[in-house]
Amino acid sequence: MQTLEVGILGATGMVGQHFIKFLQGHPWFKLTWLGASDRSAGKVYRDAMTWHLAGGLPDSVADLMVEDSKPGNAPKLLFSAMDAAVATDIERAFAQAGHVVVSNSRNHRMEQDVPLLVPEINPDHLKLVPGQQRARGWKGQIVTNPNCSTIVLTMGLGPLKQFGITRIVTTTMQAISGAGYPGVPSMDIVGNVIPFIGGEEEKMQQETQKILGEFQGDHIEPLAAKVSAHCNRVPVVDGHTVTVSVEFSSKPTESDVRHAFDVFTALPQQRGLPSAPPRPVIYLEEANRPQPRKDADRDRGMAACVGRLRACPVLDYKFVALGHNTVRGAAGAAVLNAELMRSEGMLDR
Amino acid sequence: MQTLEVGILGATGMVGQHFIKFLQGHPWFKLTWLGASDRSAGKVYRDAMTWHLAGGLPDSVADLMVEDSKPGNAPKLLFSAMDAAVATDIERAFAQAGHVVVSNSRNHRMEQDVPLLVPEINPDHLKLVPGQQRARGWKGQIVTNPNCSTIVLTMGLGPLKQFGITRIVTTTMQAISGAGYPGVPSMDIVGNVIPFIGGEEEKMQQETQKILGEFQGDHIEPLAAKVSAHCNRVPVVDGHTVTVSVEFSSKPTESDVRHAFDVFTALPQQRGLPSAPPRPVIYLEEANRPQPRKDADRDRGMAACVGRLRACPVLDYKFVALGHNTVRGAAGAAVLNAELMRSEGMLDR
Amino acid sequence: MQTLEVGILGATGMVGQHFIKFLQGHPWFKLTWLGASDRSAGKVYRDAMTWHLAGGLPDSVADLMVEDSKPGNAPKLLFSAMDAAVATDIERAFAQAGHVVVSNSRNHRMEQDVPLLVPEINPDHLKLVPGQQRARGWKGQIVTNPNCSTIVLTMGLGPLKQFGITRIVTTTMQAISGAGYPGVPSMDIVGNVIPFIGGEEEKMQQETQKILGEFQGDHIEPLAAKVSAHCNRVPVVDGHTVTVSVEFSSKPTESDVRHAFDVFTALPQQRGLPSAPPRPVIYLEEANRPQPRKDADRDRGMAACVGRLRACPVLDYKFVALGHNTVRGAAGAAVLNAELMRSEGMLDR
Amino acid sequence: MQTLEVGILGATGMVGQHFIKFLQGHPWFKLTWLGASDRSAGKVYRDAMTWHLAGGLPDSVADLMVEDSKPGNAPKLLFSAMDAAVATDIERAFAQAGHVVVSNSRNHRMEQDVPLLVPEINPDHLKLVPGQQRARGWKGQIVTNPNCSTIVLTMGLGPLKQFGITRIVTTTMQAISGAGYPGVPSMDIVGNVIPFIGGEEEKMQQETQKILGEFQGDHIEPLAAKVSAHCNRVPVVDGHTVTVSVEFSSKPTESDVRHAFDVFTALPQQRGLPSAPPRPVIYLEEANRPQPRKDADRDRGMAACVGRLRACPVLDYKFVALGHNTVRGAAGAAVLNAELMRSEGMLDR
Repeated sequence: MQTLEVGILGATGMVGQHFIKFLQGHPWFKLTWLGASDRSAGKVYRDAMTWHLAGGLPDSVADLMVEDSKPGNAPKLLFSAMDAAVATDIERAFAQAGHVVVSNSRNHRMEQDVPLLVPEINPDHLKLVPGQQRARGWKGQIVTNPNCSTIVLTMGLGPLKQFGITRIVTTTMQAISGAGYPGVPSMDIVGNVIPFIGGEEEKMQQETQKILGEFQGDHIEPLAAKVSAHCNRVPVVDGHTVTVSVEFSSKPTESDVRHAFDVFTALPQQRGLPSAPPRPVIYLEEANRPQPRKDADRDRGMAACVGRLRACPVLDYKFVALGHNTVRGAAGAAVLNAELMRSEGMLDR
Repeated sequence: MQTLEVGILGATGMVGQHFIKFLQGHPWFKLTWLGASDRSAGKVYRDAMTWHLAGGLPDSVADLMVEDSKPGNAPKLLFSAMDAAVATDIERAFAQAGHVVVSNSRNHRMEQDVPLLVPEINPDHLKLVPGQQRARGWKGQIVTNPNCSTIVLTMGLGPLKQFGITRIVTTTMQAISGAGYPGVPSMDIVGNVIPFIGGEEEKMQQETQKILGEFQGDHIEPLAAKVSAHCNRVPVVDGHTVTVSVEFSSKPTESDVRHAFDVFTALPQQRGLPSAPPRPVIYLEEANRPQPRKDADRDRGMAACVGRLRACPVLDYKFVALGHNTVRGAAGAAVLNAELMRSEGMLDR
Repeated sequence: MQTLEVGILGATGMVGQHFIKFLQGHPWFKLTWLGASDRSAGKVYRDAMTWHLAGGLPDSVADLMVEDSKPGNAPKLLFSAMDAAVATDIERAFAQAGHVVVSNSRNHRMEQDVPLLVPEINPDHLKLVPGQQRARGWKGQIVTNPNCSTIVLTMGLGPLKQFGITRIVTTTMQAISGAGYPGVPSMDIVGNVIPFIGGEEEKMQQETQKILGEFQGDHIEPLAAKVSAHCNRVPVVDGHTVTVSVEFSSKPTESDVRHAFDVFTALPQQRGLPSAPPRPVIYLEEANRPQPRKDADRDRGMAACVGRLRACPVLDYKFVALGHNTVRGAAGAAVLNAELMRSEGMLDR
Repeated sequence: MQTLEVGILGATGMVGQHFIKFLQGHPWFKLTWLGASDRSAGKVYRDAMTWHLAGGLPDSVADLMVEDSKPGNAPKLLFSAMDAAVATDIERAFAQAGHVVVSNSRNHRMEQDVPLLVPEINPDHLKLVPGQQRARGWKGQIVTNPNCSTIVLTMGLGPLKQFGITRIVTTTMQAISGAGYPGVPSMDIVGNVIPFIGGEEEKMQQETQKILGEFQGDHIEPLAAKVSAHCNRVPVVDGHTVTVSVEFSSKPTESDVRHAFDVFTALPQQRGLPSAPPRPVIYLEEANRPQPRKDADRDRGMAACVGRLRACPVLDYKFVALGHNTVRGAAGAAVLNAELMRSEGMLDR
């Protein structure tokens, strides 16, 4: 398949750096354009930011010039890593100008005509796009991925959607990399737990309902499940761990649930999308897994891991889910979204 | 009040060391006797163990001789910090011989005639003791405190018992000190979460029902609430943090629940027991509290802290609770139990 | 002794909070005045800052009004916890106006006529004060304590000064609390080491020479020892650990050096100053001590610990030293300085 | 080049697991044989151990049968990951039987006729082998790699050997993975520093002199430099950081030293050995690098990083060095040794 040039909006921040790292060596997408704020525009990338990720700044990107975040010479496909404070207007301007904006920012996620996409769970939500373009008069489009903790939860629940999810109680133990840079002060988290992440519980509750919801012509009818999230920050670098208690309308047996995990596969796997993990959800047998430091990196950070399936005395079953928050929960999520869109022909002229 | 000599069974282990530290300067109890396994007996304490706690080994204890764990010259009141592997027989032998065994070990907690005591929650469960003595032919007695994570949960729920608790979903984030020494290998927990602690979920589920249950002459009728626990280890030194979703039969308003936290006080406070915190449960107003490293030590580690009370979309309310696992959850719990028993006259001839 | 009212300049920052915590229950000093920037002045303290320290904000301070950092109604004795960016002018203005400024800020430490005081090491450096007052036309005065890592090093070296120190190579492993709040981003230090702290090595090298130097009428003749420091940040909350290789001109035996540690005592101990630890330097026998989490708190954080004395193949001896950086290395250091000054009659009319 | 079958002695321990991970996909060596203790022999590998490394047990190894650690059907080239308690006799038995034992164990490192090899530093030390075979009557041979902290130090010093190293003072901050599994108890290291690692300082001091020494026909004449090491454990997962002060006889300028780092390359690079990093020592420009979590993984963990070169007030220069302790400092070191040996024709008949 022909290589497509791509750009990043918000390239100098932490999420932007994750996009740069994840796109290294991508077989379909070649990173040629970096957008950032006025402060950075006009500098070469290596001078425009401090690189925070392990392994060093890739040479191929170090000398790219940083551009203003304005449509113009940017490639058609843009990944947005912008701060919520500025993403709304800039993403819309690019979509208006004909760009395909595949965004990790939260700004458009809950808008009625914008897909909140997890390719293994709700690929059909891309059907919102034509209506979005009509209603907004855009040649381009905006497609979003969920919040990092929501992705982990929905990946874990995806195989179980068939059983009719009615209630979910979840507690997260989220990695510090989810808060960006400088993010969480070390005095707040070394040897500590912070039982609060601003806005996170609301995002998990709403986004989960939308992702597991049904496409209804011009909007997504959210899943009518009740969702309760307790969000916590823990001193882990990468990988969000979530505990899940879940209730089903169809009352599956434990082995039905386990089987659902074991056989789960989806469109990205069937189409062999480059960033799709061989198995989107891996059930780990060991009693004490998944664990973020040991399991978040599996399949380049794109697989979610689950484990500890057992009966829940209050709802029906409980289990643990884990995913890499900056890969599967951010940069990798958006790239996989773009791969799905390309495989649907949505990135062609 | 006259000072009472006390001893510790299992004095060389981590929990034993916590007892030694907590009893320093105690106004009622003077530590004069240390029991341990054959391997340690006959040595002075400083040579019988490696001291693991911050602040150094108290001088007053360093030169005490370690004794065999056999009744004989031990004082009447004994705190048990023994491993579960050996506690059953030894605790019974001491109770048989007329000792009051106030135990932190799990072995007798769920026995029908043994109080599982949290002085602020179920002081009346001490009424089991006469029946215990009759049935077992003991002059002495065994009284236990709950598992460290159970105490945190039940302290948080104690003020709310009045509303008729019917369902609880809880997730713990437990400190490494709860696993003793050497305990959790650092390779398993530095920068990591372990979503499993053997036997812990079952303990939390059962012990909570017993503690919140009702004394019925010769046994405790457990609370008929359903309890589901998800137990996790996190890289925190001291302090177990738990998230709680709870359902009530009486459907209190949020301000009813908040008021119940604010006004909660109990027998240990009314009697001014030496280790009783001024307020057993402290509601913290800040959005991101309680936190283990900042709040576990309040009131010498004897107060539980709660916070973040809010509506739960699945059950009725949710909140966060925190307690110091080796103080309120172990050594301090047992000492407060003994103080309550003394104030009831149970330690007199 | 009559209680003296004291104030804090820079009361809302982290160091200011450490002063507040350390002064709780002080037998000589009663905290009655809090100064801060315009932004905070006019608010009660609890509304003027976010409290970051473990254990909660002391009630006695919570409702004090924060004042402008201008002389006027402030008490004579002021502890300065101000940022270096503003400390120079404000400290001078207060000294000019007759206040005794006992400062933890770095601004005046290396000025020729300002004592850089460690009461156990160089109490005679207070003799600089009369000259300072004459030269600057001040009724008040400024006295400083060293950088937190310098204090640990000099406390460890103090007992050995008698042997004629000629060369020192030291590596620090410094706690995150030394960087204040928000201080070090967690993404930079969780599971990591940062082998650089801006300006720290220069401070350690110069301050050590001044502290170990000799009073010469109107200045301190710095110790002619060569000092080389390697400063590192490690994921420890409180307590700076330093490795030290040291060369002596008098070539003491190892047992001479050990004996010097064992018998070391100084003026603060002889005078029984309230914050003086019973022994300023504690030699720990265990092969793997001192350790910050286990030893930094000894004697309320005011004792330095040393250990692992052994021959150095390059210089003469090597050992490990440890001290609590925010107590002995900051707030407690300044309070002990003020206690020494009071015992010298320098705080009287 | 033809693929060579290889085995691992001590395959079930942590170091053995690192060998398995590092050898995955190796272009020259195919892992076909796993040796372990009697307890494990006869089981398939997945049942014989608990896998502790991130990323999961490679499928290609999971079903290999574990063999007794006795010569017989083992391949000629064996990597030894055995505990020091058993390595001496077993390694000798295999060497006697004609095997090439490339060992990470410490047992034979300091023997006069055994190369202690760092391929970039002292490849000519392999010339010891013929004498070793003659003297011991072996058809096989034993070649060792240094201790993990020694490798980091010597990689940093290798480019500077030309200047005549005369004195070294070094302090290590070592990762927990260096202690194996279960290794360091979390209660000893979370939020803490342990300023002692048994035997480590002696190893660093002696091994460094041997590695930097000269081949003299039948032995290595150790470098006559004085070396002083202070070894510490810090809460880092992977990557040993060392501070180094060094004195040279030839008194190079700072730019001479910097140039030496920048141009350093060696035999493994010239021969393109598969595990050789492009540049063995990478000088990082940023003021606060290298850092273990961000830099230890560079070039698959095989490159050492240095930084912060500056004048030392006591010796001549000081700098920071870093390397991945389980890769460059253990499994990768041994594999690179074997690659060098193969390129020398030492693995052929």
